[in-house]
Amino acid sequence: MSASPAVPVHFLEEARATAGEARAITRRMRAAGFSARRKPDGTFVTDVDDAVERAVRDRLARAFPGHGIIGEELPPQGGAGEWTWVIDPIDGTRSLRHGLPLYGTLLALLHHGRSVLGVIDLPELDRLYVGAEGHGAWRNGEPLCLADTDHPEPLAEEIVAVGDRASFAAAGEGPLFDELLRGDLTVRTYGDCFGHAMALEGALGALLDFDLRPWDAAASEALVRATGGRLLVRRRAAADGGVRIDLLFGKPGVVSALEARLDGRLRAVGFAPA
Amino acid sequence: MSASPAVPVHFLEEARATAGEARAITRRMRAAGFSARRKPDGTFVTDVDDAVERAVRDRLARAFPGHGIIGEELPPQGGAGEWTWVIDPIDGTRSLRHGLPLYGTLLALLHHGRSVLGVIDLPELDRLYVGAEGHGAWRNGEPLCLADTDHPEPLAEEIVAVGDRASFAAAGEGPLFDELLRGDLTVRTYGDCFGHAMALEGALGALLDFDLRPWDAAASEALVRATGGRLLVRRRAAADGGVRIDLLFGKPGVVSALEARLDGRLRAVGFAPA
Repeated sequence: MSASPAVPVHFLEEARATAGEARAITRRMRAAGFSARRKPDGTFVTDVDDAVERAVRDRLARAFPGHGIIGEELPPQGGAGEWTWVIDPIDGTRSLRHGLPLYGTLLALLHHGRSVLGVIDLPELDRLYVGAEGHGAWRNGEPLCLADTDHPEPLAEEIVAVGDRASFAAAGEGPLFDELLRGDLTVRTYGDCFGHAMALEGALGALLDFDLRPWDAAASEALVRATGGRLLVRRRAAADGGVRIDLLFGKPGVVSALEARLDGRLRAVGFAPA
Repeated sequence: MSASPAVPVHFLEEARATAGEARAITRRMRAAGFSARRKPDGTFVTDVDDAVERAVRDRLARAFPGHGIIGEELPPQGGAGEWTWVIDPIDGTRSLRHGLPLYGTLLALLHHGRSVLGVIDLPELDRLYVGAEGHGAWRNGEPLCLADTDHPEPLAEEIVAVGDRASFAAAGEGPLFDELLRGDLTVRTYGDCFGHAMALEGALGALLDFDLRPWDAAASEALVRATGGRLLVRRRAAADGGVRIDLLFGKPGVVSALEARLDGRLRAVGFAPA
């Protein structure tokens, strides 16, 4: 159980409203057309990423002047105080750029570095996931619960999702990817926020996603705790001085079955279902 | 170029209206709840598959009394005449059953065995794809065109989708799957009608899907021809006496680049863009 105080309810309300503003910007720009450019690391960023991150930062800075803000596309702002917001304006930029409807916006709130509130919005699927420690989690207002039910599916019937092989390879886990894809489970590559969201609502038995940046992982870390799901994590120092995060989460029974294949490389973290 | 006559326009209109009826049934049953049972082959079928196939058959039999009808869940009806409708009431039953919004309804019309009209409906994504030889293809009424543009993406930027590894293995192509997943392309496992639809609208560079039944493949075969895309096909006799179909289709440039890795195992078929 966590020693964090309950997240104030108006933080949740503001996070939900902020996601709504991000969705409106994304939908408007997607309809009107947008451009993309290469970043120094070779990946692309679009005008949508820029516009959403600026709008979200402005809104959060006005609502919570004392909070820090970090995001994928702009430098950190505000101090290293009690609360820090983490923004990924568009998770799945490659999908957005190509027209796959599987991208979204991620928002999380850290309390002394621990993720306690998470938001995933999938604008083209019209699905908004909001959750916080001490409150619970919802999809479009309906409660989400991943705690085991009386009638779990047999493991062979569950769908397990993984990120792409390059991410596994970057985490030294290429052989695990190959073993999973060749094995007896139904494994699909649904990375980015779409896979995370589907695991949070139990459509997937579990999601195994490697080599994430903090802004890719923070929303899901809080959300899965708030659903009563099970979460295994590994944090690694990367050559660029940053942190990389490897995650396995989903239905407790499925996560436990997969944990046996990980030989302790990812560890359980405490969770506090509502 | 094909020697088929143009598909009568009222066939297209009836196909579109039939997909609309299928969508209404699917959405209603998805909201109300449905049950699933195992088929003799070990896979599941749901009440939604049954209800949609019955409604589609009834409607087509009334509209086209002289046409044959084959579908996934019920025996063939009508004679082996000039025109035959092919129905997959729910393609992606596993996704539907688990709550992944990536399933849909497939409808095709064969003229002397050749697929000349295709419909893919994705109820939860609100995307309807309709196309026919001599007419063209549309997504929600907007024209689709996969013919090469002046500014194709570099191959490394395209997303290539594949079916699951078990399907590749059933076609003797497990090593190809492994090679693609470990290679330099961005490869994701988006099988079923979601992957087909995303390739048809150019969000994917190409789709490589193996070991399909005729009702899984027929709609896409007609649709990709109607978009001006490129299609490679292999038809195989299966141990159960049926036919299995292996497909590669999408943007002509991407399909040609992948063709080189297939050593002639799949062959181009003629197409007649509108």
